[in-house]
Amino acid sequence: MSEAPLTRSWRARYGECDQQGVVFNAHYLAWFDDDMTELWRAAFGSYEAAVERGIEIVVAESHLRYRASVRFDELVQIEVAVTHMGNTSLTTHHSVTRDGAVLVEGTLRHVTVDPHTLSKKPMPDWFRAGLAQFAGDAYLGSGSLPGQ
Amino acid sequence: MSEAPLTRSWRARYGECDQQGVVFNAHYLAWFDDDMTELWRAAFGSYEAAVERGIEIVVAESHLRYRASVRFDELVQIEVAVTHMGNTSLTTHHSVTRDGAVLVEGTLRHVTVDPHTLSKKPMPDWFRAGLAQFAGDAYLGSGSLPGQ
Amino acid sequence: MSEAPLTRSWRARYGECDQQGVVFNAHYLAWFDDDMTELWRAAFGSYEAAVERGIEIVVAESHLRYRASVRFDELVQIEVAVTHMGNTSLTTHHSVTRDGAVLVEGTLRHVTVDPHTLSKKPMPDWFRAGLAQFAGDAYLGSGSLPGQ
Amino acid sequence: MSEAPLTRSWRARYGECDQQGVVFNAHYLAWFDDDMTELWRAAFGSYEAAVERGIEIVVAESHLRYRASVRFDELVQIEVAVTHMGNTSLTTHHSVTRDGAVLVEGTLRHVTVDPHTLSKKPMPDWFRAGLAQFAGDAYLGSGSLPGQ
Repeated sequence: MSEAPLTRSWRARYGECDQQGVVFNAHYLAWFDDDMTELWRAAFGSYEAAVERGIEIVVAESHLRYRASVRFDELVQIEVAVTHMGNTSLTTHHSVTRDGAVLVEGTLRHVTVDPHTLSKKPMPDWFRAGLAQFAGDAYLGSGSLPGQ
Repeated sequence: MSEAPLTRSWRARYGECDQQGVVFNAHYLAWFDDDMTELWRAAFGSYEAAVERGIEIVVAESHLRYRASVRFDELVQIEVAVTHMGNTSLTTHHSVTRDGAVLVEGTLRHVTVDPHTLSKKPMPDWFRAGLAQFAGDAYLGSGSLPGQ
Repeated sequence: MSEAPLTRSWRARYGECDQQGVVFNAHYLAWFDDDMTELWRAAFGSYEAAVERGIEIVVAESHLRYRASVRFDELVQIEVAVTHMGNTSLTTHHSVTRDGAVLVEGTLRHVTVDPHTLSKKPMPDWFRAGLAQFAGDAYLGSGSLPGQ
Repeated sequence: MSEAPLTRSWRARYGECDQQGVVFNAHYLAWFDDDMTELWRAAFGSYEAAVERGIEIVVAESHLRYRASVRFDELVQIEVAVTHMGNTSLTTHHSVTRDGAVLVEGTLRHVTVDPHTLSKKPMPDWFRAGLAQFAGDAYLGSGSLPGQ
């Protein structure tokens, strides 16, 4: 897959930093969730558009590596790319960088389900095609979540 | 009204503390929201029980005074008492204390509304009677929210 | 004082919304804290610049009115203006608006202290002059915090 | 290693739940961070005691699997066990259960560093012996973080 990630800037907020003066680890997961909001928007309009078209998306797995810290008020780049699409499973790779150095990176796996029954439901073509625009290669350790 | 507040213990969590090493101010509002969950439970079973009986509760106003800090891992007492009940309006007083010293105190005002229309709906008797058990006197500055 | 507030846009994040589908009340206080970060930046460089010049700033009081809800992914305007400067006390007014309608507004009071002793320390001229550029009139209920 | 995990009860807070009515995924990471606070307390007094004795602890990696949801006000059990101790690396396994069913589980890896230089520093005996009391077997997928 070609490299076409979605990138945004973010400034670490005061309330996100802990007494070590750096972003508290759980907040990176919230940042990566924000990535998904932007990915849905770029791929097919919005999360709510997907739900209206019959696809609910739930998170199934997350894996984060904390390589270096982000300090209060620091401006970082956050990037997300789609690294795998199965029948009902979507894997994304996320990275927080500053001047090209990777500070934190993560992999999330989401599953598509029926909004009413919450049982697994294959990704429709519009979902898959929209996300395919943001396909990229993973570069996290073994390249994926354990077991894949 | 007699003093009969609801009290619980809480230990400041690592992720709640900012780089000054003390609880970040917004989290006290989350603590006071937790007070409401416990107040509903003690008064009439639960928040969800109220919704099922036709009463939705929304927050309308909050006022907090930060007198002293709570540090990471400190054990504090959090207390809530009902200080005013109008037709559709409920005022509660909240305090965070350590060894009897008030560190942070707050006043919240909630309004009862219809779960479907979200328009104001008078408190039913069971709601009022349940909360009356936890009536207390405010001790925040002027004793109430501005304008009351 | 003339009207010269500081304004920014913000999109409600998924993780900020509660099961009513709207931003959880405590997060508005975090948004208003973000306002302060931007105010310090615009007024005299940054919060850290103030600390380096011998002024620590601590929050003393907050007052919020929740008039209407902000839903997930909604884009709102957040505005902050300085409404009062005493010897050691700074009052700011904050509002969240959508299409000109005020959804949530708040007043915060901060106090300037010595970074080492944490005892009150009068605002220096550079601090006061920097903030004076963002002076505005309050429009919250009685216009101020109780007791002012 | 024998099974001797540390267990506590937790009730999902209103502000932790998203518009799907379930705990937002990033908060589980905050819960597991709370586990570490309790683990330090049980093993050698407190996190701060470790810092005072010359050991700072930083998170290096996290891996979570979301198997089922936790709803608002639900009471769950949260359990942590030490699953690996290397020279400077500590792996813990965390689980959120209800009536014995695993809802969410996670693995965290922390590294011991010097509080001043932040470079890696081997775990002292008191650190290792304290934690050894809470050794347990992992039961997450492949049993560990990728690459171990």
